[in-house]
Amino acid sequence: MKRLRYAMVGGATGSFIGPIHRMAIRMDDLADLVAGCFSRNARTNAVSAAKFRIDPERVYPDWQSLVAAERGRIDFLVVATTNETHYAIARAALRAGINVFCEKPLSLTLREANELGRLAAKNGCVLGIPFTYTGYPMVKLARDLVRRGELGHVDKVVMEYVQGSFRKPDRRTSWKTDPKIAGPSCVVADIGVHAFTMIEYVTGLEVQSLLADLSSFANTAGLDDDASILMRLSEGAKAALVTSKVATGEENGVRLRVYGDKASVFWDQEAPNYLSVKYPMRPEMVYKRKAPYVGDVSARSAAASRFPAGHHEGFVEALANIYDEFAAAVLSGKTRDFPGAREGVRSMRFVDAALKSAKAGCRWIRL
Amino acid sequence: MKRLRYAMVGGATGSFIGPIHRMAIRMDDLADLVAGCFSRNARTNAVSAAKFRIDPERVYPDWQSLVAAERGRIDFLVVATTNETHYAIARAALRAGINVFCEKPLSLTLREANELGRLAAKNGCVLGIPFTYTGYPMVKLARDLVRRGELGHVDKVVMEYVQGSFRKPDRRTSWKTDPKIAGPSCVVADIGVHAFTMIEYVTGLEVQSLLADLSSFANTAGLDDDASILMRLSEGAKAALVTSKVATGEENGVRLRVYGDKASVFWDQEAPNYLSVKYPMRPEMVYKRKAPYVGDVSARSAAASRFPAGHHEGFVEALANIYDEFAAAVLSGKTRDFPGAREGVRSMRFVDAALKSAKAGCRWIRL
Amino acid sequence: MKRLRYAMVGGATGSFIGPIHRMAIRMDDLADLVAGCFSRNARTNAVSAAKFRIDPERVYPDWQSLVAAERGRIDFLVVATTNETHYAIARAALRAGINVFCEKPLSLTLREANELGRLAAKNGCVLGIPFTYTGYPMVKLARDLVRRGELGHVDKVVMEYVQGSFRKPDRRTSWKTDPKIAGPSCVVADIGVHAFTMIEYVTGLEVQSLLADLSSFANTAGLDDDASILMRLSEGAKAALVTSKVATGEENGVRLRVYGDKASVFWDQEAPNYLSVKYPMRPEMVYKRKAPYVGDVSARSAAASRFPAGHHEGFVEALANIYDEFAAAVLSGKTRDFPGAREGVRSMRFVDAALKSAKAGCRWIRL
Amino acid sequence: MKRLRYAMVGGATGSFIGPIHRMAIRMDDLADLVAGCFSRNARTNAVSAAKFRIDPERVYPDWQSLVAAERGRIDFLVVATTNETHYAIARAALRAGINVFCEKPLSLTLREANELGRLAAKNGCVLGIPFTYTGYPMVKLARDLVRRGELGHVDKVVMEYVQGSFRKPDRRTSWKTDPKIAGPSCVVADIGVHAFTMIEYVTGLEVQSLLADLSSFANTAGLDDDASILMRLSEGAKAALVTSKVATGEENGVRLRVYGDKASVFWDQEAPNYLSVKYPMRPEMVYKRKAPYVGDVSARSAAASRFPAGHHEGFVEALANIYDEFAAAVLSGKTRDFPGAREGVRSMRFVDAALKSAKAGCRWIRL
Repeated sequence: MKRLRYAMVGGATGSFIGPIHRMAIRMDDLADLVAGCFSRNARTNAVSAAKFRIDPERVYPDWQSLVAAERGRIDFLVVATTNETHYAIARAALRAGINVFCEKPLSLTLREANELGRLAAKNGCVLGIPFTYTGYPMVKLARDLVRRGELGHVDKVVMEYVQGSFRKPDRRTSWKTDPKIAGPSCVVADIGVHAFTMIEYVTGLEVQSLLADLSSFANTAGLDDDASILMRLSEGAKAALVTSKVATGEENGVRLRVYGDKASVFWDQEAPNYLSVKYPMRPEMVYKRKAPYVGDVSARSAAASRFPAGHHEGFVEALANIYDEFAAAVLSGKTRDFPGAREGVRSMRFVDAALKSAKAGCRWIRL
Repeated sequence: MKRLRYAMVGGATGSFIGPIHRMAIRMDDLADLVAGCFSRNARTNAVSAAKFRIDPERVYPDWQSLVAAERGRIDFLVVATTNETHYAIARAALRAGINVFCEKPLSLTLREANELGRLAAKNGCVLGIPFTYTGYPMVKLARDLVRRGELGHVDKVVMEYVQGSFRKPDRRTSWKTDPKIAGPSCVVADIGVHAFTMIEYVTGLEVQSLLADLSSFANTAGLDDDASILMRLSEGAKAALVTSKVATGEENGVRLRVYGDKASVFWDQEAPNYLSVKYPMRPEMVYKRKAPYVGDVSARSAAASRFPAGHHEGFVEALANIYDEFAAAVLSGKTRDFPGAREGVRSMRFVDAALKSAKAGCRWIRL
Repeated sequence: MKRLRYAMVGGATGSFIGPIHRMAIRMDDLADLVAGCFSRNARTNAVSAAKFRIDPERVYPDWQSLVAAERGRIDFLVVATTNETHYAIARAALRAGINVFCEKPLSLTLREANELGRLAAKNGCVLGIPFTYTGYPMVKLARDLVRRGELGHVDKVVMEYVQGSFRKPDRRTSWKTDPKIAGPSCVVADIGVHAFTMIEYVTGLEVQSLLADLSSFANTAGLDDDASILMRLSEGAKAALVTSKVATGEENGVRLRVYGDKASVFWDQEAPNYLSVKYPMRPEMVYKRKAPYVGDVSARSAAASRFPAGHHEGFVEALANIYDEFAAAVLSGKTRDFPGAREGVRSMRFVDAALKSAKAGCRWIRL
Repeated sequence: MKRLRYAMVGGATGSFIGPIHRMAIRMDDLADLVAGCFSRNARTNAVSAAKFRIDPERVYPDWQSLVAAERGRIDFLVVATTNETHYAIARAALRAGINVFCEKPLSLTLREANELGRLAAKNGCVLGIPFTYTGYPMVKLARDLVRRGELGHVDKVVMEYVQGSFRKPDRRTSWKTDPKIAGPSCVVADIGVHAFTMIEYVTGLEVQSLLADLSSFANTAGLDDDASILMRLSEGAKAALVTSKVATGEENGVRLRVYGDKASVFWDQEAPNYLSVKYPMRPEMVYKRKAPYVGDVSARSAAASRFPAGHHEGFVEALANIYDEFAAAVLSGKTRDFPGAREGVRSMRFVDAALKSAKAGCRWIRL
C-alpha cells in the first residue's frame, strides 16, 4: 500500500482536537504528517512542528502559503481550526485539488457548504468530515440490522446528544459561544450535526422537515445552547432529538434509539461496545463488539473492530475507522463508508432549517 | 386509627388493574373491601364477590345501585372501570358525598374533569387518582432535591414514557384503541398523563403551553399511539416528552431527567430504587432508597419506604404510598401528598391541548 | 378456598421483619392474623396486638401459653423472634401439631435443626423458612433453565451475598453479634444460609463438601462477619461464595452466576426483575419478569409474577410467593415449591461445616 | 525528546497481540519499529516486515541473530511470542544490555523469572510487562484513593477475571492448553497473573499466602482452566479471586472490589471509564475518567487520560500508558509507574504457589 502523506492546519500541541486526529491516523499507521501550519502564533507553530518532527521547510506561517506550497506534495489536508475558517481553507485546498478532511461544522452557512460540496465533486477531491459516532462498530451494526430488515419498518427515532459543558466554570467563555468564530449556531452546529448525521446513517432515511425549539439557558451571547427538534423522515418515520450544552453533569451523552415495527435498537456512546436489540416477544439481545455473531450480521462492523470482544475500544478507534475509509477512498478514488461532502452539506442544511424554524416560532421547515 | 371501608366498581377477578388496587390497599392494611360491582357480567360479578368475601347483600348489578345503597356506609369508592365510565361514576359518587379514588384518565374530556373537580370541592369530597409514579420514594426525593434548591434553577426537563405493547400480537385490538371506550386520545390520555403529572410534581413548575406531534403508527383506529411533545413551563423552563405505545420491545420505560443550573437528577422506573444526581464539578451521586442519608434530605421519601435499602420495592408499594396519603386525607380532611382533583384536571387540560396542537399542525397551545 | 388463620411470635410494631411477614401474607390475602405474642415487653405486646386488631383473649404473655392455647385454633404459626428462641418455639409448636413458618436460621445448632426436621415429618406438620431469594420469579426462571438443560452441565457457581451493615455506626452492637442470641456464627448463619440455599435451589445439585475462611474484621465479639467459602457439589461442579457484613457501602448484594458448559445465567437481587443468559456464540439474552416468553420456559416463574413486565416487583412479592406455596401445602398436605424442613436442615449443616472448616485452618469438610 | 527505536520478536501480521503492541506504541508516537523477527515462518516474517516497512537488513530469521545484530542499535525489544520462549529471549536480550518489554507470563517457572529479575538489575536494563489493567486511568485512581486513606484500612478484596473463551468451538485447541508451549498452568498463568498484579497494585499490600482450588472443566490436557483462590495479604487483609476460561459467555470480565473500613471501590474492565466509590453513610459516588475532580485526587489518573470525560478510552490506551512509563524509564533510567521485573517475579511466585496449593489439596502456601 502506497504510503500517504498529510498536512494539518490548526491542531497545535495542547489543542483538544488536533492530537485526536493524529492519534487516529497513527492507529492503523495510515499516513505521515509531513507539513503544517499548526497555529497562528509563530512560536506555538514552531514548537508544535518540532515536536511532530516536521521538516522546517514545510512549516508555514499561514494556511494560504501551506496550500500553495504543498499542492501536489500531500495526499490530504486535515483542517482542525475553529469554525469560521473551515470554509476558506477547505475551499482553497479543494481548488488546489487537495483532498480535505475537515472538522465539523463544514462551514458557517449552508451556501458555503453547498459550494464546497460542488467544488469537491468538480475537482474530484475526497472530502471527509469527522462525524465520529458513525465510525463506531456498533453503530455500523445498527445500520446493517436496519438494512437487513431486522427492525421492520422504521417508525420512530429518539435521539439525544447532551453535554453539560456550559455548566462548568471554565467553559462558559469558550469560542464556541462567540458568533464571529462559531457562526450563527452553537449547540446545533457543534453537536446537533452529529446526532442528525447518525440518524440518517443508521436509518438510511432522509430528514425531510423539522421543527426546532432553541434556547439559551447559559450566558451564551444569544446563541443556542439547548434544542428540542422534531423531524419528519422519508417513508413516514419521525424523530425527536434533544441536544444540549447545559445538560448539567452530562459528559457526552450520545444515545440513539430506533423503533421499527418488528424490533428496536439502542446504542449509548458511553457504553459503546454494546448494542441492545429489543423485540416484542423475545428477550432483549445484547450484541458485543467483535463477538463471532456480529460478523454474521454485519461484515462492516466486524471489519471496523480491532480488539476481541471484552477488550474495549473507544473514541479514537471510531475516528480511526473513519480515517481508514477516507484513506481508502483517497487511494482508490471510490466511494467508501465514511461521512463526506453529502453529510457535510446535509448537516448544514439541518442547522439552517433549525435556525429558521426557531426564528419562526417553531414552524415546520423543509430541508 | 379508625378502620376504613371501601367499595369498588370494576376490577373483577382476572382484570389487570383491580388486583393491584386491592393489593396496594392491603399492603398497609388501610381498609376493608365491603361492597362492589365488579363486572357488568353477573356471573363474573358474583364469582369475584365471593372470592373477595363480600356480603352478598352488598354486591350490586350496576354502579348506580351501588352508589345509591352504599352512600354513608363506605369511606371511599375505587373506580377501576374502562375510561368512558369514569366521569359518570365519579360524578354520581361525589354527588352522594362519597370520596372517590378514580383510575386515570379522570374523564374523556376537559369539561368533564373540570366538573368533577368542582363537585369534589363543593361537596368536601376527597378525590384521588393513581398517578402511581409520583408515589415512588425516589421520585419524592427528586421533588425535595428540587425544592431545597439542590438543582438550582430548573431549565430543562427530558422525559419519556414508552411502551411497546401495541407491537405485541394480542394487544393491538384492546379497548384502549376504541374511541368510544378510550376517548379521543390513546397514548397521551393513557400514559402521557403520567409523564405530565410527574413533570409538574417533581419540578414544582406549571406547564403553560405545549406543542404536540401525534402519530398513529400501529393500526389504532386513528387514535394517537406515539407522541412527541414540547412544553414551556413557568419560570422559563422547557420540557421535551416522548410517549409511545409502539416503542417496540420497551416494557414500561418511564425515565425522567431534570436539568437545573447547578445539578440534574435522573430516575428510571425500571430501576426505581435509585436516584442519580449529577453535578458539573463533582462525581455523580447515586442515592439508594431508604439509605440513612435519604432521610436527611427528604423525610417524605424515607416515610414512603417500607424496607431497608437493598431490599427492593416496586410498583405496588408506590401505589400503596398514594393510598396511604389518600386515606390520611379521608380521615383528616386535610391536604396530603397525593395526586387528586387538581392533578386530574390539569392532566386532562394537557390531553386537550395536545389534541388541539396536533390538529393545528403542531401549533403552541396554552394550557 | 378455606380461610387460613395464623398467629405470630415476635414481630411487634417497629420490628424489622415482623411487618414484612404480615405484608407478604396480606399481599394475596392468604390468612388472617388472629393471635400472637408480639413482644416479651407487656406494653409493646399490647400496643402491637391492638394495632393488629387481635382479640385481647388471644394475646399471650409468652409463646408457651400461646402454643398451649392456640393448638387446633390456628393453621400456622409465624416465628419472627431472635435466633436463640427459634428452636424451642418451633419444637413446641410442631409437638402441638402446629404448622410453623420460622425465620432463618432454623436453630443455633445442626442437632437442633435435625430434631425439628424429624419432628415435622413425624407429626405431619408443614415447616416453612423464608429463604426469600428463592421466591423471586427470575430465580425460579434460572432454576427452570438449568433443569431444561439450557446451560448444559453445570460446572461452576460464583455467588456473593454482601452487606456493609456492620460499617454503619448504629449497627455494630446489634444482637446479631451476641453469641448468646445469634448463636456461634454471624454472617454465615445470618445471610450465608440464603446464598447456600439459592445455590442448591437453582442448580438442583447438592453441596457435598466445603472449605471456609472466616474473618472478624469489625468488632463482632469474635463472630464471623466475612467469609470466603469454596464448595464441591454433586456431578463435579464447584462453587465459590463470598458473604460479608463488612462489605462497606453494599446494601444487599445477592448476586448469583451459574456457568454451564452451554450457557450461563446471572441474577442480581438489586435488579431482580431481570435474568441474563449468556452463550458462547450468541448475543446475551436478557429475560424480563412476566414477559410472554418467560412463561414459555418457566410456568413456575410466570405464576410467581403479579404485575406485567416493566412494573417492578421486589422483596415483599418474593416472600409472598413463598407464603403462597407454604399456604398451599398447609391446605393440601402436598409438597410445594418453597424452602422447608429439608432446606432448614441443610442450611444448618452448611453453617456447621463452615465453622468446623475455619477452625481447622480451612480444611475440606463433608456436609 | 530523543526518538526511540525498537525491535519485535513475534507479532506477525495476523497475530493477536502483536498489532496491539504496535498500536499502543504509536498512540503517543513513542518509538519507531526498526527491526524484527516476526515469525519463525520465513514468508510470514518477510511479509510482515514489508508491511511494517522494516529495512530488509534488519529482518532476522531467528531471535538469536536479532539480539546479536541489534545490540546497541535499539532502545528496547518487544517480546510477543508464545510463553515457552519468553525466558530464553528475554535472558539473551538482557545479557546483551537490551531493555525488554515482555509479554506475560514472564517465564514458565519461578526460577526463570527470578533469574530474569536479577539479570535486569545487574545489567541496568529496564524490564516491562504488559499487565495492561494496571494502566487504566480509573485503576490508577483506585490506587490513589487507597493511598490517600479514603478507604481506611483495607480488609477484603473480591476479584474476578473470567472469560468464556474455552467454550467457543475454535479456541479449545489453542496453544494455551499445550503444556509444552503454555507451561504448567493455563488460566492462572495466562490471566490469573493480571488479577494478582492488580490486587497488589491497587491495595499497595503484598499477598503473603494463598490457597488454590484449580479445575479442568473443558478438555484442556489437564491444565487448569478455572480457579478459586483465597489469599492473605499484609496488614491482615484477605482476598478472594475467581479466574476462569470456562465462564461461558463472559468476554473479558475483570472486576475488582476493594473493601476498606471507611469506603470501598469497584472497577469493571467492561465499563473502564468509571470508578464507583461506596460509603456507609453517603450516596455512592461515580467518578468519570478525566473529569476535573479526578485530577484533584489522582494526578496519576488524570495524566494517564487522553480524551475528555465521556469520550471513552479502552484497552489500547491502557497499554499505551504502560509503554509511556516504560519509555520514560528507558530514557531517564529512573523508576516509573509500570509493571516491571518485580511484578513479573511476584506474579510467577503466585503461579507457583497456586500450583503447589492445588496439588496439596488446597493447603495454604506462602509466597
